[in-house]
Amino acid sequence: MTLQVTVWNENVHEQEEPEVAERYPDGIHGAVAEALAERGFETRTATLQEPEHGLTEDVIDETDVLVWWSHCANDEVSDDVASRVVDAVHEGMGFVPLHSGKNSKPFKRLMGTTCNIKYRHGGETERVWAADPGHPIADGLPESFEIPSTEMYGEPYDIPEPDRTVFISWFEGGEVFRSGVCYRRGRGRIFAFRPGHEEYPILYQDEVQQVIANAVEWAAPTEGSDAVWGEVEPAESTE
Amino acid sequence: MTLQVTVWNENVHEQEEPEVAERYPDGIHGAVAEALAERGFETRTATLQEPEHGLTEDVIDETDVLVWWSHCANDEVSDDVASRVVDAVHEGMGFVPLHSGKNSKPFKRLMGTTCNIKYRHGGETERVWAADPGHPIADGLPESFEIPSTEMYGEPYDIPEPDRTVFISWFEGGEVFRSGVCYRRGRGRIFAFRPGHEEYPILYQDEVQQVIANAVEWAAPTEGSDAVWGEVEPAESTE
Amino acid sequence: MTLQVTVWNENVHEQEEPEVAERYPDGIHGAVAEALAERGFETRTATLQEPEHGLTEDVIDETDVLVWWSHCANDEVSDDVASRVVDAVHEGMGFVPLHSGKNSKPFKRLMGTTCNIKYRHGGETERVWAADPGHPIADGLPESFEIPSTEMYGEPYDIPEPDRTVFISWFEGGEVFRSGVCYRRGRGRIFAFRPGHEEYPILYQDEVQQVIANAVEWAAPTEGSDAVWGEVEPAESTE
Amino acid sequence: MTLQVTVWNENVHEQEEPEVAERYPDGIHGAVAEALAERGFETRTATLQEPEHGLTEDVIDETDVLVWWSHCANDEVSDDVASRVVDAVHEGMGFVPLHSGKNSKPFKRLMGTTCNIKYRHGGETERVWAADPGHPIADGLPESFEIPSTEMYGEPYDIPEPDRTVFISWFEGGEVFRSGVCYRRGRGRIFAFRPGHEEYPILYQDEVQQVIANAVEWAAPTEGSDAVWGEVEPAESTE
Repeated sequence: MTLQVTVWNENVHEQEEPEVAERYPDGIHGAVAEALAERGFETRTATLQEPEHGLTEDVIDETDVLVWWSHCANDEVSDDVASRVVDAVHEGMGFVPLHSGKNSKPFKRLMGTTCNIKYRHGGETERVWAADPGHPIADGLPESFEIPSTEMYGEPYDIPEPDRTVFISWFEGGEVFRSGVCYRRGRGRIFAFRPGHEEYPILYQDEVQQVIANAVEWAAPTEGSDAVWGEVEPAESTE
Repeated sequence: MTLQVTVWNENVHEQEEPEVAERYPDGIHGAVAEALAERGFETRTATLQEPEHGLTEDVIDETDVLVWWSHCANDEVSDDVASRVVDAVHEGMGFVPLHSGKNSKPFKRLMGTTCNIKYRHGGETERVWAADPGHPIADGLPESFEIPSTEMYGEPYDIPEPDRTVFISWFEGGEVFRSGVCYRRGRGRIFAFRPGHEEYPILYQDEVQQVIANAVEWAAPTEGSDAVWGEVEPAESTE
Repeated sequence: MTLQVTVWNENVHEQEEPEVAERYPDGIHGAVAEALAERGFETRTATLQEPEHGLTEDVIDETDVLVWWSHCANDEVSDDVASRVVDAVHEGMGFVPLHSGKNSKPFKRLMGTTCNIKYRHGGETERVWAADPGHPIADGLPESFEIPSTEMYGEPYDIPEPDRTVFISWFEGGEVFRSGVCYRRGRGRIFAFRPGHEEYPILYQDEVQQVIANAVEWAAPTEGSDAVWGEVEPAESTE
Repeated sequence: MTLQVTVWNENVHEQEEPEVAERYPDGIHGAVAEALAERGFETRTATLQEPEHGLTEDVIDETDVLVWWSHCANDEVSDDVASRVVDAVHEGMGFVPLHSGKNSKPFKRLMGTTCNIKYRHGGETERVWAADPGHPIADGLPESFEIPSTEMYGEPYDIPEPDRTVFISWFEGGEVFRSGVCYRRGRGRIFAFRPGHEEYPILYQDEVQQVIANAVEWAAPTEGSDAVWGEVEPAESTE
């Protein structure tokens, strides 16, 4: 069955910075959604400016995996919508925050940490290494790929120890970063992927698109077993 | 250096239920604090009813490890105090929620999951097994110990996969539960321990007190390394 | 593409104990292979008594997932065949040891621990709980199922902390056990599943067969990324 | 109580290469043992050339933590001595392999993986980042430190997902490496630390010595609980 993917974007830089609008004429959400559609997913987009940020209950109900790009407007996401996303992840929806999506309300609530990093603007080289070559999110990728020009993110990255560290990045300026990390919360799978700064055409890069597509595939909901919570009768005699 | 432990209790059952008041005349907080004092820790107590629930900035600053008992009043804890506890854990304070402390605001925020369980009142037997006999929180304990009469908690327990599962409980009625689980969030160590229902004298039981004391010792802050967050200069030339 | 499953069995009890032979007329391997074939996998079997225990290089090369049942003859498996299995797991072959397969040479080498347990014969009830209801190995299962009569395995189970604890068992006699645990070693996925004693018709039980089938699906090799090991040239100038 | 540390070294480069002998006149083992003695540990040394490689049963019995340096002679360690080390780790002895100690028989047996890496000679810069600033092995360290000239080790590093990734290294030539990783096997704590090539005075560097000392402290045996393995009587009636 075709996976239903919603690509969410705060869509602010595209409105306010002409170079970003020129680079991503359909928005970052448009570029990512198109890349995923080309790879066989059914996609829709949603943005901060729409009612309920485009993430109504209906949209969330129909979403298998939510890809999330955000940066400067993380605080403008309403608490209610953030809770709706978190609840949906607990119920099994996949969640793939890109770039500063690591600072989004849903990701920080799911992690329980500050998600702090160090950073630097300036367009240096990043080399993304597959530290876990057996992971499906690395499917079909070379063991490393280069992003010619990007913002730097550096360790320490204040996240819980990942279930899996799929990618680790090298930066020209001397830093390293766990740029692809996996978690589960409730029934939902989460993959946080570092690349994707709005000042560069990173989201058009083939390897980056491939990672996002692999992550969507990996984060798809699974059936699992029943789970009964609350008060229950004993199965065995307790006399 | 002697560890400074604050034992927090919602202290509601003790006020409202005479049997609980009789069982724990100094409150559950008093019983736990005394047990820890006997084992060499410097202890103080704090309760929901005090201003800022007794967890003022000064108290938190002087606390190495916070032991937390709560049950029916989890929602009455203010968001501000919950945030203060979470922030302190990120900075290194140890956190040891007992029993329904697993439903407390700080624990749920640190986990990022619902922390749902199944449960049953009725006073059945629990046998607590040390699944990780090499863990310091199991120091000096037998490989299992029995709690003669308790409320049941059953799997599935909706928590992130623990860093370490130290104890797993068996219940007379047919359920199992990961009753002692370890996490780290930021610099802080967290150990959630299941036993401790107010209807039974469980918190006077020697093995239970020993586990709590071991957990306090284990959860003590460590120095660690520096961590610089925010914008930084490159260490290497990026020309 | 249909997954190729090899079901390996030491096949000793079936030869030496008439009741086991009667219970499993095609051997435990036959029963498991048939259950998997019915669920859509291509299966073959192999046993200790065949040349190279039936696990020749050709067989291993054609195997996506190896299901392994063993008990009394773990030491009779040759070191060479054990190494071949371990190497194949590193390269991506799935490995699903059942019951005392946890004492097999390949599993112990992959774990790096003793895999010790406590046990008891006597035919008591086991209740298997899905502790991780969001895991694909729990797909389609009830939240718990009962094995009416079985050998007991009890904690502490001397294994590395699992990547995922999917099932935890309750035993009538008072013990608990992590009866379904997941690992990765190299590119290969491993799921050790406790049930399956030869003295009971456990391997005909629908839930048990479903778990094994789910585990085979989960343990299937993935493509992953390239991995270059050994001496390499620098990507960046080191002048 | 003062921790008893044994520093083991294959001690081959020191015999065969005059520059190494000049750099480490007391051997790498001597340099490390002295650094640990200065930090308050009781130390002894042992080398490949001694009977039973200096790791007799008596020595192992008296060792709380074994620090291990090896490189070109990993295969010359006898299987018996390797097993003795592995068994002692299971019983609680700490184990701290340095540099190519990641290829030693004991470490590979404890990991269950190939421990493969990529590498390059040539004396490039390494910057070691504390990815986990809250970890005691990072105590008192800056958030990163530089090793001016070293052999490169690069990802993918074929190890099980670490319990904790304390350090990640950046290399001038474009690679990254998880250079400080924690595991437990049985009761024993393991910390594999990358730095320490024989061609450079790395083991005299203060930060490197501090990491090793911290690791020894962290890897010290703990008491834990009892663990009964083998056949047992039921605690509950199974009638």
